[in-house]
Amino acid sequence: MNDLKPQTSNLKPQTSNLKPQTSNLEDTICALATPPGGALGIIRVSGSQSLAIVSRIFSKDLTQEKGYTLHYGNILADDGTTIDEVMVSIFRAPRSYTGEDCVEISCHGSSYIINNVLELLILHGCRMANPGEFTQRAFLNGKMDLSQAEAVADLIASTNRATHQTAMSQLRGNFSSELAKLRDQLLKLTSLLELELDFSDHEDLEFADRTELKDLAEKIDRRITHLAHSFEKGQAIKQGIPVAIVGKTNVGKSTLLNRLLKDDRAIVSDIHGTTRDTIEDTIDLQGITFRFIDTAGIRQTADTIEQIGINRTYAAISKARIVIWIIDQEPTEEDIKEIQELCNDKSLIIIHNKIDKQTSIDPLSSTLFQVRHYAFLRISAKHNLHIDELEKAIYEAADLPTLSDTDVIVTSARHYDALLRAHESTQRVLTGMQMQLSGDLIAEDLRQTLDILAEITGGQITPQETLNNIFKHFCVGK
Amino acid sequence: MNDLKPQTSNLKPQTSNLKPQTSNLEDTICALATPPGGALGIIRVSGSQSLAIVSRIFSKDLTQEKGYTLHYGNILADDGTTIDEVMVSIFRAPRSYTGEDCVEISCHGSSYIINNVLELLILHGCRMANPGEFTQRAFLNGKMDLSQAEAVADLIASTNRATHQTAMSQLRGNFSSELAKLRDQLLKLTSLLELELDFSDHEDLEFADRTELKDLAEKIDRRITHLAHSFEKGQAIKQGIPVAIVGKTNVGKSTLLNRLLKDDRAIVSDIHGTTRDTIEDTIDLQGITFRFIDTAGIRQTADTIEQIGINRTYAAISKARIVIWIIDQEPTEEDIKEIQELCNDKSLIIIHNKIDKQTSIDPLSSTLFQVRHYAFLRISAKHNLHIDELEKAIYEAADLPTLSDTDVIVTSARHYDALLRAHESTQRVLTGMQMQLSGDLIAEDLRQTLDILAEITGGQITPQETLNNIFKHFCVGK
Repeated sequence: MNDLKPQTSNLKPQTSNLKPQTSNLEDTICALATPPGGALGIIRVSGSQSLAIVSRIFSKDLTQEKGYTLHYGNILADDGTTIDEVMVSIFRAPRSYTGEDCVEISCHGSSYIINNVLELLILHGCRMANPGEFTQRAFLNGKMDLSQAEAVADLIASTNRATHQTAMSQLRGNFSSELAKLRDQLLKLTSLLELELDFSDHEDLEFADRTELKDLAEKIDRRITHLAHSFEKGQAIKQGIPVAIVGKTNVGKSTLLNRLLKDDRAIVSDIHGTTRDTIEDTIDLQGITFRFIDTAGIRQTADTIEQIGINRTYAAISKARIVIWIIDQEPTEEDIKEIQELCNDKSLIIIHNKIDKQTSIDPLSSTLFQVRHYAFLRISAKHNLHIDELEKAIYEAADLPTLSDTDVIVTSARHYDALLRAHESTQRVLTGMQMQLSGDLIAEDLRQTLDILAEITGGQITPQETLNNIFKHFCVGK
Repeated sequence: MNDLKPQTSNLKPQTSNLKPQTSNLEDTICALATPPGGALGIIRVSGSQSLAIVSRIFSKDLTQEKGYTLHYGNILADDGTTIDEVMVSIFRAPRSYTGEDCVEISCHGSSYIINNVLELLILHGCRMANPGEFTQRAFLNGKMDLSQAEAVADLIASTNRATHQTAMSQLRGNFSSELAKLRDQLLKLTSLLELELDFSDHEDLEFADRTELKDLAEKIDRRITHLAHSFEKGQAIKQGIPVAIVGKTNVGKSTLLNRLLKDDRAIVSDIHGTTRDTIEDTIDLQGITFRFIDTAGIRQTADTIEQIGINRTYAAISKARIVIWIIDQEPTEEDIKEIQELCNDKSLIIIHNKIDKQTSIDPLSSTLFQVRHYAFLRISAKHNLHIDELEKAIYEAADLPTLSDTDVIVTSARHYDALLRAHESTQRVLTGMQMQLSGDLIAEDLRQTLDILAEITGGQITPQETLNNIFKHFCVGK
């Protein structure tokens, strides 16, 4: 029991303990928060000296101005030259993104202007921010926990409904509150265990408690396992589902791919540059992205099946979760054998294309293939026949675990890893109970589970290395 | 005299006359004002319905909020889903960029979020803005004149001190006030002419007036010519000066080019993406950009001179204003003849490279070449010897008209064209005076000069076609 108390106090963020790890929290940082080349550029400044530094290069003193106010004026070089006419937004600690005093300078998006404003800020005491440093500060200053901070990067990278929804849910703390519930249950389990220890001379009492303890531990483990299980869907959402289209030459691979891609143009895709880059060779079905793997010649209608011996094609297809095999005539036994080898643990969709032609093919029996998921469809890519059914079949072939809309979905490998370890640790708790181990031995594993789950939200003191790993993938300016 | 009065009243912007030309001023417009793909995205909304429309998709009613205030909240889809947590800036007419009610939404830079916010705005009554439409509205609402509006695009495109300075000067109205001065003088001339007409029965008085009139007209014409003359420098500033490096194989062309390019890295060029794209193969010398023409193999040290017969290389070099000819041994008469043919109306810099080697070359006499500007230098590109002198020589070879720092520089072909026509028209005024034409005939040309100059600032009713031509080159969102 003495072992547990000091540990549990670590579960709440200890801001004072976190600060010494990052001495550069004293710096005032600046960065361009928008890509260069647009009408506007937003330069962010955060830190205790933000208002003082910006005042030195601005046509107006801002040090006495209130938060949540806008100011129009000029950025002036040291020789008095006007660098730009800008709009400045002021945020006062703690009511800002980072929790520190912040200034945002909205200037014209010229590279010359942006460079000059940044140079002036640096000259007057700022330092260039590292990737994700604003969000890292938001975390260190207790504005969000670590899983929420990670969600910021996911939110910025989101390109469809599913990636957006999972990131937004995580940012709004749904995952964090799931973990908080688990922590409460683990703490309750600990209390019960302590109670048991206190009355350990009453042998019959111990037995009664152990049943209740076991039920609670199993409930906790089920929840942890459920969360860990959601990672498969989380990965599918975040990375997209890899799909390979294979088939003999002239069977209609390119036509089909183009048909699928064309049907998925976003409504406002004509807004310059907003979506075109990201939807290249991917389609969104019910919020999930499906990525078409370049199987060395899908586009050039190279004969994938005939060249199947080529290692490169094999390797590419081996990454697919779904294989779409297009045929336009009865396949040979050899063909079927090859496809079976290719699709061992994958989902297989066989498509009889060109149904407008006279050729008739009997559906191939699913018993011919040992695959994860099987479907047989008849379509005409050229004449746009039954493409809806195909899209439905592709989504089903993804074979994702069904999770309800309100379910928390784990999308981060770091979180998944922690959940797996928490599961192992909870399993040790359960084994210990089964083996009638003494309460203090079990408590050790309980404490470990708590520690592991606290890693996710950063409730523990988070090693600088972990923080570096998390934030290095952020863009500068966030 | 009766002819003149109603015309001069046109010189002041007639806001009421301008509106009917563009019926779509009633629309509330929206656009992304930053490139997608950054930490932040700024969506601009302008028009009478801005606050009402944004309120429909925002977690808070903004219709009663004051200008120059910031508001934190959520953008909500019609089904209540949170699209993003955003910061909203409010500007009230006329204290906004466009002179209308404006809202700026600062959201996360995700393509999904940006598309959704724009879609929601459109769904609730906005329309997507055309390129430059915000600035066009600023002009139409009298927030700036046309030459200032054009300067906005130049300012955003500015990449060095000179382009920035000329655009900023124009934006701040220096060109406009030059034109206002000219207008005042033209109006004074008109008054004097009217005075002359009133007393036209006094023959001796007429002669005295004509001298004064002529002096004033000449003064006006000198100023117009001076402004038109600045266009050469303006073009050089805006487009950069094309430079071709030629010479035999292995003479050190690549080494020299790399040396020149390397010496010109901007101080903060490591700021992600801000400068790298724009300084590729260009250098800035005293604020002027010099662009190195790809003479089909400078980089690959192909033998430009030996292949000089190839049309493509000829055509490329013919666009150069400066030719740098590198030699490392005494050139033949044939070489000199070829270079002379190449450099007819250009500036020529002959460089004796590899001066660390023993070869000695006498300076070639400038009399050998009939060129615009001539220089002979000895350097070592490899050992970085005398590169400073070369840079000075390159700047001098640009042979730009000397203009003082406070001089207005014309950078727009539209303005240049108007100035040339204004000059012709003033010339007609002068000729008319010389030919002792009657005052009302001269007044006709004076009126035309006034009209032409008014085109520049848009003081006249500007045809929609002209506006379209000007604003189509803007980015969307500005």
